[in-house]
Amino acid sequence: MIILGVDPGLTRCGVGVIEAGAHSRLSFIHVDVVRSEPEQPQDLRLLTVYNGLAAKMDEFIPDVVSIERVFAQDNRNTVLGTAQAAGMAMLAAAQRGIPVAVHTPSESKTAITGNGKAQKIQVERMVARILNLNTLPKPADAADALAIAICHALRPAGAIQGGEREQHLTAAQRQWAMAAQKAGKSSRVRRAM
Amino acid sequence: MIILGVDPGLTRCGVGVIEAGAHSRLSFIHVDVVRSEPEQPQDLRLLTVYNGLAAKMDEFIPDVVSIERVFAQDNRNTVLGTAQAAGMAMLAAAQRGIPVAVHTPSESKTAITGNGKAQKIQVERMVARILNLNTLPKPADAADALAIAICHALRPAGAIQGGEREQHLTAAQRQWAMAAQKAGKSSRVRRAM
Repeated sequence: MIILGVDPGLTRCGVGVIEAGAHSRLSFIHVDVVRSEPEQPQDLRLLTVYNGLAAKMDEFIPDVVSIERVFAQDNRNTVLGTAQAAGMAMLAAAQRGIPVAVHTPSESKTAITGNGKAQKIQVERMVARILNLNTLPKPADAADALAIAICHALRPAGAIQGGEREQHLTAAQRQWAMAAQKAGKSSRVRRAM
Repeated sequence: MIILGVDPGLTRCGVGVIEAGAHSRLSFIHVDVVRSEPEQPQDLRLLTVYNGLAAKMDEFIPDVVSIERVFAQDNRNTVLGTAQAAGMAMLAAAQRGIPVAVHTPSESKTAITGNGKAQKIQVERMVARILNLNTLPKPADAADALAIAICHALRPAGAIQGGEREQHLTAAQRQWAMAAQKAGKSSRVRRAM
């Protein structure tokens, strides 16, 4: 199962792609940041972000797009642009019939480090360890995108966020999702070793 | 000059189309509301709104899309969806090379009634009067979409909102825009009669 994670942002939108394979194996495929220029008008910035995300989806053909949830109480100066960038990811996925899952930063941190309030550097180190990367993924938006993809693979059964979205999975995709959940459980055990 | 106004919303997204012609004439062309079902997942709702708005743009081929501005301090329960709906309008316009203008509700009320804090019913009555409609446009989202389109036509010179977006107008479009501004000025005089 290919999972494309998105850390939404208008200036920098992180994209991380992983594969959740058999035997609890999570593999790194790709990481990048889609950028738009703050000097440009909002509509052209959104077009840039949309085109960038759509191109990634067409390149990696993910089975699911996992997006970090935006909260209304986030930074007032950027929250609307961030929500709109998340909207671009949702639209591009929906147009391609790719199911969308939304996970909170706290879920992501819990899935990866066991601590919902883990510091950024701790999450980055665990992302690198889980994906067998020799260096920490940079910039932070790229690491967060990988984290949100990993979170989707490792999410505990019975606590699926964006669960209603799973209804749009095909039977085969649902089986994949369940297999990935099981993989997530055992990989957490593995990581604890 | 054809102006397509958008009152952004996820459940109900108002669309109003007017023509700003010669001799200060503003004519009603179309009004409608694009709806999405609250029960659906967010990504499919955004797809519905995007498809609805894109279809209106393809049908009426506006010279400019005028969108009501969303503020981060708006209703927390709906503000992110509203911002994302506005993003769908911006993306659909940008993909078609149509310039986007953003106007605040207060600008819209001032342009139409002379009072930035005018009540909804007063704005609706003036929208109907300006466009020679026999009945008030319903629902409120439809009236607001027409108001934001009218606002763009009537905006005062030197106080253009979303002014940087005008850079993307062609020379001919800029001439239209200037003509529409002049038209706006005299039509305000006319309405005061």
